[in-house]
Amino acid sequence: MNVLEKYFRAVEAKNSRLCVGLDTTLEKIPHTLASRGIDGMYKFNRQIIKATAPYAACYKINLAFYEQYGAEGFELVKKTLAQIPDDIVTIADAKRGDIGNTSKAYARAVFDDLKADAVTVSPYMGSDSVEPFLFGDKFVFVLALTSNVGSGDFQRLESNGKPLFMHVIEKACTWTPESKLGFVVGATHPDEIAEIRKVIPERLLLIPGVGTQGGDLEGTRKANGTSPYTINVSRDILYRTRNEDFAELAGERAKYYAEQMGK
Amino acid sequence: MNVLEKYFRAVEAKNSRLCVGLDTTLEKIPHTLASRGIDGMYKFNRQIIKATAPYAACYKINLAFYEQYGAEGFELVKKTLAQIPDDIVTIADAKRGDIGNTSKAYARAVFDDLKADAVTVSPYMGSDSVEPFLFGDKFVFVLALTSNVGSGDFQRLESNGKPLFMHVIEKACTWTPESKLGFVVGATHPDEIAEIRKVIPERLLLIPGVGTQGGDLEGTRKANGTSPYTINVSRDILYRTRNEDFAELAGERAKYYAEQMGK
Repeated sequence: MNVLEKYFRAVEAKNSRLCVGLDTTLEKIPHTLASRGIDGMYKFNRQIIKATAPYAACYKINLAFYEQYGAEGFELVKKTLAQIPDDIVTIADAKRGDIGNTSKAYARAVFDDLKADAVTVSPYMGSDSVEPFLFGDKFVFVLALTSNVGSGDFQRLESNGKPLFMHVIEKACTWTPESKLGFVVGATHPDEIAEIRKVIPERLLLIPGVGTQGGDLEGTRKANGTSPYTINVSRDILYRTRNEDFAELAGERAKYYAEQMGK
Repeated sequence: MNVLEKYFRAVEAKNSRLCVGLDTTLEKIPHTLASRGIDGMYKFNRQIIKATAPYAACYKINLAFYEQYGAEGFELVKKTLAQIPDDIVTIADAKRGDIGNTSKAYARAVFDDLKADAVTVSPYMGSDSVEPFLFGDKFVFVLALTSNVGSGDFQRLESNGKPLFMHVIEKACTWTPESKLGFVVGATHPDEIAEIRKVIPERLLLIPGVGTQGGDLEGTRKANGTSPYTINVSRDILYRTRNEDFAELAGERAKYYAEQMGK
């Protein structure tokens, strides 16, 4: 079963398009866990996963938050991914991309070592920087139009009457079929999602930006129609409280988002 | 002393613009060391640094090659950087970039944990993805025109009569002065280096692509004139042989490149 099939089954089973983002940092988890360092982060993640798994089609783990704690943090990415039930898609949010032989090493890191199902990749360096990630049955999300303010700096530059993000989408679609490659498009841009859907109705989109970043959930749903997508929420699920009932509240919030998103 | 000043002093002291790239992998180091795993990689790096330090203004360590070995590999990046003499500039070649709060965590990883002097960053996500790396006295190299074939896919797209890489350069120069930010431009594009130098004579360039990638060393020198740059060579220095005399041959090769590059 490839990752796209796994995604479709997970959406069906959970009746949800929610992706829970595990952006875990010591500064934000409950004090009693934070005082235990990396081990506290591990316990936090384990409890969050247990509480949110009934409502999650995907989990996304952003490597940055773990790398800041060095090798121990890097190891925690792997230990956290190993806690996620097999029927849920796991995405290593790494935004990597380098020349061919180097991207090959990054692909080994996320797929062989961390054992993620999918990875996010930056398109700036072009085809040979992305191709090494097209790896066995794995899946790649190429950054197209990201959720942040700076997305306007280069991604919207027009060339031949089309913005850069549309060039990225059209070119990347020539590299491999939809079973192996989709795109990252922020929920802060529902109008562009509608434009993108005219071009790629079949591609899976990973849509961050709902919650703390203020993205438009309802507009995002409408713009996607029946096309495949997963909407990521990180901070607004993880950090409802710094008290002992954090996992319970995270589960409730995940349930709320799953219901809002439907399938 | 900021990183740019450190670079100028190192070039003067070593009479060299060479950056040695520590792209170390088990498949390519001498068999006797490879059989010892990560510890063998550490010994390899230590000997390479000892042999090449007299000729190196900078070292660049590409995180991909280490991450593929998981947490132990990640730890080795830190241990390797700690072996580099203090008067040589250290560059974490990470090509990171994410939304603001996430880039902040990546910046902590490369500067606080790994203690590198400089980092490479992808510009695709724009200003707020790069700004968190403008950190204390540290230095950022933004990808502009990379050395690989895929650089033609998007970096050369024309918008308002200028290629994307030139938009990246012009915009990034508005973010911070030359003491904190330079660019990556491949030695495979000497004509464009000459064009770039008309716009940014003062910015430090990190120039990969000489050696195995076939970049043009002499054309690169000429195109830069008296502007500041460092040329990276990785595989063509590290892997002269898989025999015991690898470090000696690496030192000779580094000396050869330093002489070719001059200062």
